[in-house]
Amino acid sequence: MRSRTAILDLSVQMASREGLEGLTIGELAGNLGVPKSSVFALFGSKEELQLATLAEARRILIGQVVRPAAPAAEGIERLRALGDAWCDYLTSEVFAGGCFLCAASAEMDGRPGPLRDAVATVMGEWLAILTMNIDAAVRSGEFDAGLDSAAMAFRLNALGMAANWQYQLFGDEGGVAHARAAWRTEITKARP
Amino acid sequence: MRSRTAILDLSVQMASREGLEGLTIGELAGNLGVPKSSVFALFGSKEELQLATLAEARRILIGQVVRPAAPAAEGIERLRALGDAWCDYLTSEVFAGGCFLCAASAEMDGRPGPLRDAVATVMGEWLAILTMNIDAAVRSGEFDAGLDSAAMAFRLNALGMAANWQYQLFGDEGGVAHARAAWRTEITKARP
Repeated sequence: MRSRTAILDLSVQMASREGLEGLTIGELAGNLGVPKSSVFALFGSKEELQLATLAEARRILIGQVVRPAAPAAEGIERLRALGDAWCDYLTSEVFAGGCFLCAASAEMDGRPGPLRDAVATVMGEWLAILTMNIDAAVRSGEFDAGLDSAAMAFRLNALGMAANWQYQLFGDEGGVAHARAAWRTEITKARP
Repeated sequence: MRSRTAILDLSVQMASREGLEGLTIGELAGNLGVPKSSVFALFGSKEELQLATLAEARRILIGQVVRPAAPAAEGIERLRALGDAWCDYLTSEVFAGGCFLCAASAEMDGRPGPLRDAVATVMGEWLAILTMNIDAAVRSGEFDAGLDSAAMAFRLNALGMAANWQYQLFGDEGGVAHARAAWRTEITKARP
């Protein structure tokens, strides 16, 4: 169990920098100073290791973004908290290569298979969290009744992904500031 | 010259699906039915091939997105035309794996070196085109004088990147429709 944790601690960092396809059992074993056979004993194949790495990244993301927003009331308050937690996370260096799921989505979208399906499932969960809270705000009258929640969730998600992109590619935190401000504007504009 | 074109036609498609790092001279030669040595004769190294592939993708993108918008007047009109051309391009299957630069940015951002720098340069050019047209609209009074053009360019770019992501990962054209609508809303909101 302890070695499993040690392997996944390292594999999420490696994959965040070099992609899930860049993950190799040999390099992982080399970096941990253990024989390849002991990594194979825990993860029977590269795909199994990739899926476990994705599951570990999902667990970390829930802790970083979803859980901090959970105390806030469903609807507007939680949407605000999710935006703040996501922006905090983007510059927090939790993953060496930036937002794990942003990178994994771009990497895997052209590669059909169980790993791509697993990435799509996790991203679907994230969009569903946004949409559910927008719908709750509509139901409670906090947001305009005619609001298209899928369109708003799309725009909110776009802000975070672009902020990650700008920070990772240009080392520019300006995108995160733009995203934080635009996230709040989206919420204000959606009021009746 | 003709073989160079044939190689790059194929390499942009391969790289759009499997990433610039996934490009191998061996696979490329195999798919073209030529010996590896003849690819090496034209591109001395993998990095040279990657840089040439990026340059070819940039050329295609200019033809698909920048040139169709060039007849429109600088400012609001050209911003609208750029948004429409980008959205058209995202679902046009020009690249087998979706927007080349979106994928290349996410892939290369954690890999320092000349290829990453070249990707950042091309993405910087794209953001500069957006910013220049926003600034022109501010100067001519079409947009509000207090507008933050970098923030607006960030939001516009975010819409297209997210539309590409949603289309590629979920096969869902809904994101492109959201992006197209939100791009127009951004322009309307920016008026004085």
